[in-house]
Amino acid sequence: MLDGRSLAARMREKIAPQAMEFARQHGRPPGLAIVLVGQNPASEIYVRLKVQAGSEAGFRADLERLPETASLADVLALVERLNRTAAYDGILVQAPLPAAVGAGAMSRVFDTIAPEKDVDGVTPSSVGRLVQGRPLMVPCTPLGIIELLEHEGIVIAGRRACVIGRSEIVGKPMALLLLQRDATVTVCHSKTADLAAITGEADILVAAIGRAGLVTKEFVKPGAVVIDVGMNTLADASLVSQWYPEGHPRLATFQKNGTLLVGDVHPNVAEVAGALTPVPGGVGPLTIAMLMANTLRAAQLGAGSALADSW
Amino acid sequence: MLDGRSLAARMREKIAPQAMEFARQHGRPPGLAIVLVGQNPASEIYVRLKVQAGSEAGFRADLERLPETASLADVLALVERLNRTAAYDGILVQAPLPAAVGAGAMSRVFDTIAPEKDVDGVTPSSVGRLVQGRPLMVPCTPLGIIELLEHEGIVIAGRRACVIGRSEIVGKPMALLLLQRDATVTVCHSKTADLAAITGEADILVAAIGRAGLVTKEFVKPGAVVIDVGMNTLADASLVSQWYPEGHPRLATFQKNGTLLVGDVHPNVAEVAGALTPVPGGVGPLTIAMLMANTLRAAQLGAGSALADSW
Repeated sequence: MLDGRSLAARMREKIAPQAMEFARQHGRPPGLAIVLVGQNPASEIYVRLKVQAGSEAGFRADLERLPETASLADVLALVERLNRTAAYDGILVQAPLPAAVGAGAMSRVFDTIAPEKDVDGVTPSSVGRLVQGRPLMVPCTPLGIIELLEHEGIVIAGRRACVIGRSEIVGKPMALLLLQRDATVTVCHSKTADLAAITGEADILVAAIGRAGLVTKEFVKPGAVVIDVGMNTLADASLVSQWYPEGHPRLATFQKNGTLLVGDVHPNVAEVAGALTPVPGGVGPLTIAMLMANTLRAAQLGAGSALADSW
Repeated sequence: MLDGRSLAARMREKIAPQAMEFARQHGRPPGLAIVLVGQNPASEIYVRLKVQAGSEAGFRADLERLPETASLADVLALVERLNRTAAYDGILVQAPLPAAVGAGAMSRVFDTIAPEKDVDGVTPSSVGRLVQGRPLMVPCTPLGIIELLEHEGIVIAGRRACVIGRSEIVGKPMALLLLQRDATVTVCHSKTADLAAITGEADILVAAIGRAGLVTKEFVKPGAVVIDVGMNTLADASLVSQWYPEGHPRLATFQKNGTLLVGDVHPNVAEVAGALTPVPGGVGPLTIAMLMANTLRAAQLGAGSALADSW
């Protein structure tokens, strides 16, 4: 099991004194604004964890809420105000937006965030620079995964990597980061024929689909490194009892809560994988740690360019 | 054999009357500025073909030359002047720049071209919009290849595609365009282990490496569609005589010119491929046709937004 939680904790321990040093030099801490529109229960949890991690690291971390009924114009106006607010070095708009905001709303948000505050690497120019091998801000989840692989001494160059899922926030940037580190990269998705045969060729397999337990041991090459980006809520007691043997601690968690947070990777993958990230405690904490790292970096870059401008 | 030349000719026949209509409406033809720095012989040929195609389509197509000794500042100053010149709707800086311009020069050029004149899709925001599935300007070569596949009725969705090469101008955007059309895409490169085994899985194989004849029939799944992006000059008589049987017309071309333009795909691939683009006469003419299409589009978009601004 690859322990994302303890690596994330160590990263955050390194970030905190740097945040303090930034505050000493600039008279204010690094600032992160998180935008939450509506009341998605999963988003509420993620956003709370992010605000808490920011506060613990000595950042100013503020949650900016808009109601479920907010229009696209409301969202864009808020982002523009945050762009202009010097106290914020980073802006994160929590996905997904409520459907009522309209189709293509997320793209309009991506276009509106000031690139220098784009701590989740979603603006077109951030994405373009990543493709061109000169990243400025890299999306937090794939960046955290690369940090984990490198920390664990897992060789990427020359290996076959497979990413299941092609989202803007995980799948595509993950594939690009692996490609830049000289992996031979395949991207699979819902239209892929014979998925298990293709994923079974990978030395490094990243599952970012959003389907509980879709990746079973039949999908995995023996000894492969498996990274589980999924965050799914299981509420089906019979499924949970099929997944875990009697007496397994996760069964007790399910009985206590009535639901269970699980990834895209089935527990039986542990029988064949060489290494595996758990859910929870794998990729999730790393994503939050990288959000802190990106915000600190944006603060430092912003301060640097302000200095340069005043010369 | 997939006939890129005749498809390109048909595209250009469609573009010419639209260019004339644009000129009638706006009092000037669509304008394309091509920047050539130094005296690379291959670049001289490409640039001449592009200027000629522009003129034939009724565009204003101007070559802007800088000497081999030009500095990065000279190149950027020229691009900035072209950005400000209303007669130009599109700007193309021919790669490669002379080594003396400095490392990273091409990236600085990409950052300087005005996105609305970026007819080869190289600015970070063009690249980011392509990744995000809402392209504004797409690099000409991969766009031409997609046009060819679609024109020939070749199914992309659900098929396995493999791109050999990961350049900014061909490999990466090609992979993204195939992924957007629901192919399962693998990107291979110089660090790929067991290249032939991986390319041999592909239903659609795109070779964009720049190595004469690297892709032999052992690399190709029987019946696969093979797209050859390579443009290499062979000068080795013994190699040429190995490649082509006695009496083959290409041997006569070699004897006449002393060199032969060949792709990355070996002639013996024709024995196994289901379809294959020739070199010359395959991807090259399509690239030029798409440069015309992108320039016309930039002109139309520019005129449209000028109208919108004046309302």
